[in-house]
Amino acid sequence: MTASGGGGGGTNDGAATNGGDRWDQLLTSYNVKQLLDSVDAFLFDCDGVIWRGDVLIDGVSETLDFLRSLGKKLVFVTNNSTKSRKQYSQKFHSLGIIVSEDEIFSSSFAAAMYLKVNNFSEEKKVYVIGGEGILDELKLAGYTGLGGPDDGKKTVELKPNCLFDHDKNVGAVVVGLDPNINYYKLQYGTLCIRENPGCLFIATNRDSVGHMTNLQEWPGAGCMVAAICGSTEKEPIVVGKPSTFMMNFLLQKFNISTSRMCMVGDRLDTDILFGQNAGCTTLLVLSGVTNASALEDPSRKIRPDYYTNKVSDLKRLFLNDSQQV
Amino acid sequence: MTASGGGGGGTNDGAATNGGDRWDQLLTSYNVKQLLDSVDAFLFDCDGVIWRGDVLIDGVSETLDFLRSLGKKLVFVTNNSTKSRKQYSQKFHSLGIIVSEDEIFSSSFAAAMYLKVNNFSEEKKVYVIGGEGILDELKLAGYTGLGGPDDGKKTVELKPNCLFDHDKNVGAVVVGLDPNINYYKLQYGTLCIRENPGCLFIATNRDSVGHMTNLQEWPGAGCMVAAICGSTEKEPIVVGKPSTFMMNFLLQKFNISTSRMCMVGDRLDTDILFGQNAGCTTLLVLSGVTNASALEDPSRKIRPDYYTNKVSDLKRLFLNDSQQV
Repeated sequence: MTASGGGGGGTNDGAATNGGDRWDQLLTSYNVKQLLDSVDAFLFDCDGVIWRGDVLIDGVSETLDFLRSLGKKLVFVTNNSTKSRKQYSQKFHSLGIIVSEDEIFSSSFAAAMYLKVNNFSEEKKVYVIGGEGILDELKLAGYTGLGGPDDGKKTVELKPNCLFDHDKNVGAVVVGLDPNINYYKLQYGTLCIRENPGCLFIATNRDSVGHMTNLQEWPGAGCMVAAICGSTEKEPIVVGKPSTFMMNFLLQKFNISTSRMCMVGDRLDTDILFGQNAGCTTLLVLSGVTNASALEDPSRKIRPDYYTNKVSDLKRLFLNDSQQV
Repeated sequence: MTASGGGGGGTNDGAATNGGDRWDQLLTSYNVKQLLDSVDAFLFDCDGVIWRGDVLIDGVSETLDFLRSLGKKLVFVTNNSTKSRKQYSQKFHSLGIIVSEDEIFSSSFAAAMYLKVNNFSEEKKVYVIGGEGILDELKLAGYTGLGGPDDGKKTVELKPNCLFDHDKNVGAVVVGLDPNINYYKLQYGTLCIRENPGCLFIATNRDSVGHMTNLQEWPGAGCMVAAICGSTEKEPIVVGKPSTFMMNFLLQKFNISTSRMCMVGDRLDTDILFGQNAGCTTLLVLSGVTNASALEDPSRKIRPDYYTNKVSDLKRLFLNDSQQV
């Protein structure tokens, strides 16, 4: 029997909160085997699942190796837009995990791909409220990005007869997590969206907070996106989770039905909803934004198929079960 | 006949957009007299009505003198929280208009008064995302404010094992227009609201944009307030227009029924809605955020009783009428 509770018997003892329902099941040494048997690819969120800030969550590396040894495909689907796929691959390597760029689907990449599949003209420019990752992905897709970290130190002076000028050729504003947010960027993005005809307003994601450092949560892209909603009175096109826009690219890459995929994440309103929207099995981990008491909230509408403390439970529970057999 | 159109005859030629309805009436040399006869106090918004940025709108000074000469009370109800009532009085003086502090109802004052009437303990502190005006009004009301302009130059570093600390004794976060908005302030306000039990989230107002300079609009408090909504997933208590919270103080000061008041403003969703919520006559001026084409939008729900180009039309149309008689 494992510390996570649940039974190893023939009945579904793991369905913790709602009797016979097939959701909100605590992952146990019994049902983990069912889960692993039913899935060919695991889609992992990163912040709060693989790492917190720059610190790897305990047991992740061994668990990813274990899943690969079972022949499972691994994919990393992150709403964090501050890095490009290349930068994410480097971050994985620095933490001792080998992940190729092709296995990473970041919302920075999704923003660039959204423009691409919608035939956004390369003659137009893209203003970025967010990190280097978005600018890098835009460049790889053939687009000219403005803003980003470069505008983080710019200031404005509200003086009479001063006119804040913006590029009339900006056809899209991409907003993601931006720790260098300032009034200059807010005015620039607002002017483009309000005054450039047809200018798109694209949000990488709307996560309210995230584990930008290992010890605590910080305002996420949802903060900056909401700020631009507030000033423009417009709603964005969201390309990150829970939007399934990224799933199209993932399906192009891997020839696996979404019903044979499991989305593993720490957020109900992005990760789990994304998995459900796409038709995947879903596994909530409690190592990030969502804590155990959130599961007890009666007003909660989004319910994962399974939940557990952390990713490494997948290996631990499976091996416990094997040892028992 | 005046350049603003409309008729001087006995029929209601000025009802421009909807025939016989009593709203959306273009102010004319005919109906201006009815308006002036029916009103004992004029409530003016400031940005986009009295001035744009630091530049007085043409003819305002003479028109205020004219209204005073008719015995009308004048009150200035502004959502701009960057200044205290004292600072507003000084701004009026610097523009050649004598207005006392008692005639000014700013949302900075409203925020402090909200705490006062709700018996917010003076032992607790208030974190401010916004200008000096809020801190000044809090101090006058006996409260200790933190943040504001002082935190405008603070930066954060998202380093492993660093803990961003906040004062656990903060019992309210007040958010207003903040041209020095940064990630430090966003994290501070977010932590207080999310982690300090019972911490209030107060918005001075939610104006999307405003004439922070005379030549163009800039993101308003609605931008910063939305940012904190985005990170906290909470909705604020709004004390500025269109909330009628400030009206209670105004009624205490002036013994005039709201049906004998006229609210003059440039925003439908704050000024005109405030006037309507309070039972005042409403006059929209097109010298600020709302332009003539916005009046033609069929989805528009908020309709003023009257509209005109600018405040000075009140005097010009009245005198034209008198000259014709």
